[in-house]
Amino acid sequence: MKAARFHGRGDIRIDDVPEPRTLPGTVLVEVEWCGICGTDLHEYLEGPIFVPPAGAPHPLTGETLPVTLGHEFAGVVREVGDGVDDLHPGERVAVEPYIVCGHCDPCEQGRYNVCQSLGFVGLCGRGGGFSRFVVAERRWIHPLGGLGTDVGALVEPLAVAWHAVRLSGARPGQTAAVFGTGPIGLAVIAALRAAGVEHVIAVEPAAARKNKAAAVGADEVIDPSGVNATEAVLESTKGRGADVSFECAGVDAVLRSAVLSTRAGGTCVNVAIWGHEARVAMNDLVFREVAVIGSLAYAGDHPATIEMIANGRIDPYPFITGRIDLYDIVKKGFRELIDNKEENVKILVRP
Amino acid sequence: MKAARFHGRGDIRIDDVPEPRTLPGTVLVEVEWCGICGTDLHEYLEGPIFVPPAGAPHPLTGETLPVTLGHEFAGVVREVGDGVDDLHPGERVAVEPYIVCGHCDPCEQGRYNVCQSLGFVGLCGRGGGFSRFVVAERRWIHPLGGLGTDVGALVEPLAVAWHAVRLSGARPGQTAAVFGTGPIGLAVIAALRAAGVEHVIAVEPAAARKNKAAAVGADEVIDPSGVNATEAVLESTKGRGADVSFECAGVDAVLRSAVLSTRAGGTCVNVAIWGHEARVAMNDLVFREVAVIGSLAYAGDHPATIEMIANGRIDPYPFITGRIDLYDIVKKGFRELIDNKEENVKILVRP
Repeated sequence: MKAARFHGRGDIRIDDVPEPRTLPGTVLVEVEWCGICGTDLHEYLEGPIFVPPAGAPHPLTGETLPVTLGHEFAGVVREVGDGVDDLHPGERVAVEPYIVCGHCDPCEQGRYNVCQSLGFVGLCGRGGGFSRFVVAERRWIHPLGGLGTDVGALVEPLAVAWHAVRLSGARPGQTAAVFGTGPIGLAVIAALRAAGVEHVIAVEPAAARKNKAAAVGADEVIDPSGVNATEAVLESTKGRGADVSFECAGVDAVLRSAVLSTRAGGTCVNVAIWGHEARVAMNDLVFREVAVIGSLAYAGDHPATIEMIANGRIDPYPFITGRIDLYDIVKKGFRELIDNKEENVKILVRP
Repeated sequence: MKAARFHGRGDIRIDDVPEPRTLPGTVLVEVEWCGICGTDLHEYLEGPIFVPPAGAPHPLTGETLPVTLGHEFAGVVREVGDGVDDLHPGERVAVEPYIVCGHCDPCEQGRYNVCQSLGFVGLCGRGGGFSRFVVAERRWIHPLGGLGTDVGALVEPLAVAWHAVRLSGARPGQTAAVFGTGPIGLAVIAALRAAGVEHVIAVEPAAARKNKAAAVGADEVIDPSGVNATEAVLESTKGRGADVSFECAGVDAVLRSAVLSTRAGGTCVNVAIWGHEARVAMNDLVFREVAVIGSLAYAGDHPATIEMIANGRIDPYPFITGRIDLYDIVKKGFRELIDNKEENVKILVRP
């Protein structure tokens, strides 16, 4: 079968690879749609980061580059392995693309998203969504019910957002501020809405993204290039600050603004992956007793995310800004997202 | 009456000041013992920090330096103002040395320790414990029951520690790591023991302080000058990390070590006040979903702290390393703590 594989920085090729085989306890999924993630772009531009380089195989997969990319995917069950009796060929499913050890302390806590040997399908081996077939263990397969597989490909990024909102402890009636509205910031806004948060403030300078933020549910969009974002959030919250805030940019000044915009005793969730050490005024945490929590991916969040899409609390369609074929993945996918990043949210690839 | 007043950096004088007058709703306390705090030392060496300088009066007291120092004090009620009918002359009491506005959002939340106009008696005006009499509102006066006023002067620093332990969410049976065992780190160790935490690890390089850490309840003391502290904590916790950790040093490398020593999903409480911006590897929070919380002083923690001393769950006596007279406060107090900081914990002043 054809697969888009990462061979090194700036080097993604459509290769012929063998089709994976179903083993006991696993499910063969024919991928229908797979989204391109910011993580994929980072690999392309600056990688290998998550992809294991030559000479340093991933501890669980034993694989190194080239690896098939694509971890935001959904498709149709084509075959189930021995022992899988609750899924049937023809069912539409989303795949939680984890590779975990199952026995470290985080895994035993149920926090498998921070497994000490954590890997992702589509980055660290075991194939990926930018190819026709993927085989995964039954535990990672989530039935989509009546949802389509295009929407199913969005479950993964929306689960990232739902996980972050869950960690924040946001409750109905509260106020939230989301700093940075790239794809994950937008997903956080939608998840906050779904959680019943009363007032969602987005902070974003790029014009196209500001419009997107409003489209997915922000009540108010603050442009930090025109005003002091912290002061604007405080003004909008009667001087209190937002009960919860989300750093989705990975920028020192944004983190500072997010912390200072958080209500005394509130929580700032860091969703960004950082490319550098941040400078942090720790006293900003101390003098208002703000908690800063790191949030990574998802753990047990797929069923709730699918349910929120199914019952209409999250509308995933505004997130889809392109649909392309596998052969166009670099030009109309990766390059398009890099060159026109503000206009795009999620480009789906049909493998 | 005589009072030790801060006139500026390096300038503490014994001055004559008028005795304060009891007003309705307030209590006149004759101070018997007042501890010297690290904050007082910072004012002496690097201040004014909390002390309002000339030209910038504190918003609630309207005072500027010179101010009377001393905020860790206990004494005997000598007079009660109109409307105070549940306290009587002769009762021993500890004083919670707050100056708060009462109407900002944190005050309305009950988080008056992060009042937007926060001040402290003994730093920002309204007298201080390094003088014979202090008048404070009834709400700040906590009866000591059978405890002496020397022990009463330790309620304040122990309440700081109890507050930090409370914010950490530490539960009986858990493991904790305390980084830095100056007076507050030592108090945190004692408070963790009182909270029923099963295994308390102290991380401290100074020999005299290592001994103190063991004396107040640490099960294990790691010297980070000899080993990698993070690895040592992980080894001591079966590779998990401590359920809760406490940064009591205000040093970048220590914060990093504290975060990395915290269990996945655990909490690192920052108790230190920082003199600079920290460099923080935010990904260390993300990839193990650690929360970093700032903790400041105390709010509603005095009664529980007094109770824990009274019922023997905290032994305050190892904290007292000196007792001096007011006239000796600079030489045998401030200078002694600065020049022999490792040998000392708390020096009590008798005004």
